[in-house]
Amino acid sequence: MVSSFNPTPRTLMGPGPSDVNPRILSALARPTIGHLDPEFIRLMDETKQLLQYAFQTKNELTIPVSAPGSAGMETCFVNLVEPGDKVVVCVNGVFGGRMADNVRRVGGEAVLIEDEWGTPVDPEKLKATLSEHRDAKIVAFVHAETSTGVRSDAKTLCSIAKEHDCLTIVDCVTSLAGVEVNLDGWGADAAYSGTQKCLSCVPGLSPISLSDVAVKRIKSRTTQVSSWFLDLNLVMGYWGEGQTRAYHHTAPVNALYGLHESLVILKEEGLEASWARHQQNHLALRAGLEALGLEFIVAEDYRLPQLNAVTIPDGVDEGSVRKQLLQQFNLEIGAGLGALAGKVWRIGLMGYASNPRNVLFCTNALESVLSGYNAHINKGVATEAVQEAYA
Amino acid sequence: MVSSFNPTPRTLMGPGPSDVNPRILSALARPTIGHLDPEFIRLMDETKQLLQYAFQTKNELTIPVSAPGSAGMETCFVNLVEPGDKVVVCVNGVFGGRMADNVRRVGGEAVLIEDEWGTPVDPEKLKATLSEHRDAKIVAFVHAETSTGVRSDAKTLCSIAKEHDCLTIVDCVTSLAGVEVNLDGWGADAAYSGTQKCLSCVPGLSPISLSDVAVKRIKSRTTQVSSWFLDLNLVMGYWGEGQTRAYHHTAPVNALYGLHESLVILKEEGLEASWARHQQNHLALRAGLEALGLEFIVAEDYRLPQLNAVTIPDGVDEGSVRKQLLQQFNLEIGAGLGALAGKVWRIGLMGYASNPRNVLFCTNALESVLSGYNAHINKGVATEAVQEAYA
Repeated sequence: MVSSFNPTPRTLMGPGPSDVNPRILSALARPTIGHLDPEFIRLMDETKQLLQYAFQTKNELTIPVSAPGSAGMETCFVNLVEPGDKVVVCVNGVFGGRMADNVRRVGGEAVLIEDEWGTPVDPEKLKATLSEHRDAKIVAFVHAETSTGVRSDAKTLCSIAKEHDCLTIVDCVTSLAGVEVNLDGWGADAAYSGTQKCLSCVPGLSPISLSDVAVKRIKSRTTQVSSWFLDLNLVMGYWGEGQTRAYHHTAPVNALYGLHESLVILKEEGLEASWARHQQNHLALRAGLEALGLEFIVAEDYRLPQLNAVTIPDGVDEGSVRKQLLQQFNLEIGAGLGALAGKVWRIGLMGYASNPRNVLFCTNALESVLSGYNAHINKGVATEAVQEAYA
Repeated sequence: MVSSFNPTPRTLMGPGPSDVNPRILSALARPTIGHLDPEFIRLMDETKQLLQYAFQTKNELTIPVSAPGSAGMETCFVNLVEPGDKVVVCVNGVFGGRMADNVRRVGGEAVLIEDEWGTPVDPEKLKATLSEHRDAKIVAFVHAETSTGVRSDAKTLCSIAKEHDCLTIVDCVTSLAGVEVNLDGWGADAAYSGTQKCLSCVPGLSPISLSDVAVKRIKSRTTQVSSWFLDLNLVMGYWGEGQTRAYHHTAPVNALYGLHESLVILKEEGLEASWARHQQNHLALRAGLEALGLEFIVAEDYRLPQLNAVTIPDGVDEGSVRKQLLQQFNLEIGAGLGALAGKVWRIGLMGYASNPRNVLFCTNALESVLSGYNAHINKGVATEAVQEAYA
């Protein structure tokens, strides 16, 4: 007979899910109410406001999609791309590639701009491509590549796209709340994120935000959106204004309690303070990792503080190290993805998980496990470096 | 400043979400672990087994989709229907209509069989339609129409479809765990359900099950599935066999804790016991409602015990009654949907909510509110009828 599941508590320092704030776990367990209950409609309205704050936007259509980040990505593409539309997709990691797949599946034509994994999207390449493909309608890129830990210059890329009359779709899955995201400042038209990264919430929802221009584009489509579930024309009827909400699908009520709580926590801390905290803990982690001889794959100027991708030392079995960390320390760090599988570790410091305890714990645990491979690591070297960074 | 959300506890007796078992709420709040953690893979394997039990099937591809029931519906259609495919859709309520919409959005041709709302799908009409449309590839119907409370004869409909070499897609959103669902006994090829109905879990996930024949059909498609997120070719890589799971999207970890717990509870009670409990409480509710002069819109033989659709008495403002029930009693019952909007109430007795306390409470609360409209209701008449039914 299968019995209740009681997971071993872990410290989550991979690419997400990251450690969840206990306040959010408590919120998840609050009593379920109906998805058309007046109190729930208040929660929806507050969630929209709080998401507008997080994304720094006045976009009316700023809501959570009722499914994980990948569905948020798909929501942007199925609604904004019509069959035959040309979309310039900047690919510098796994998630740019996924964007291109999304374009093709809805019958669009994806024009790829490729940059080496671990480097940011090159604005010059975007300019050149848009000069060549003057009929392109949309530019899509990843602000923070979760597969490499690189940040691209969203403001510059959006402004180039605008000069060429293109809408922009920006992947902010890993950036939101960890580094500055400023949709209105960038002039971005569509963005999506996830709950399980720097919002420190459980996985399962995808906040999105679309500009009025993007909404107009959706309303004036000549073909129907291929997905019923993600058709924003329908979703807007439920997430719209006033007390009358048209039933579309049943909202994931308790998951939304969790997201709401995570956004309240973010507002209490303040965006700027959250970004600064991510940066401070990143610098301390970096000191510890470098003391252990690990090297970052992303150049300093483009590094995401919340996702630290480092190379595996020679002679070290990367899978075995992760296994030891999990089994001996209940600590999860991430493996490489796609072209970087087996070549890097991805160490997350996201949201609630971005704190000095996790930095010290992770560098200590790594020191302990790596010492088994390399006699040249002096005991305590990571701790010393971390302490110095915080001093 | 927006503060934490603390909902007023309600009694949920609408069409879902229904009252959630407190064990499930507790499970939601357990510590989040990674979606590739070995412990989580064990949870996934157990969840598949438990879903096979609930659906009464040996289908290998029996998994929860990471989004609400509507996405489970869409998963079946986007994977099984290719552009140009003819699909016979039986429509006897809102959700049959939604199925037809799904067919059209992926480029299929929907051939409709319409039956009056509140009546079951007519097998003779299906026979006639399939004799006429010999090139039809799929038959789709709703086992338990949530908009009307009617049950159709799934076994007969599946068998007619099979005689005409059609695959079947069956909507079991409201039926699973409330009345008999027997995929293998029916010979159904694809079915989907929801978590927030008779599984008494929170909304947000959609259990699905596909036969080997259906999987073969998906693997031999000549066109790509239009949705990346719902493409079962990719999803199977994560939910497949063994310890190696290919990352697709980040699973909604804590929501899956909840579903797992709800399925453990179902297994502990046993399917037959769960069906019998739903029937017993339905009969008691029926006695109480009829004592108040309310009439069922579905003939006795086809009534779902878990969803009781009754007419509104003359001179009664249906919206005002629901509002009074919510405000005075914290009790939610459902309004009519689609063609039945304003014409019926839908009273759910689903899963954990199907119990004598709720039956007595609901009939008492209704008696109290309806007395304000109708002087002919004798005090205590509902309670008496309910008590007699349980005796």
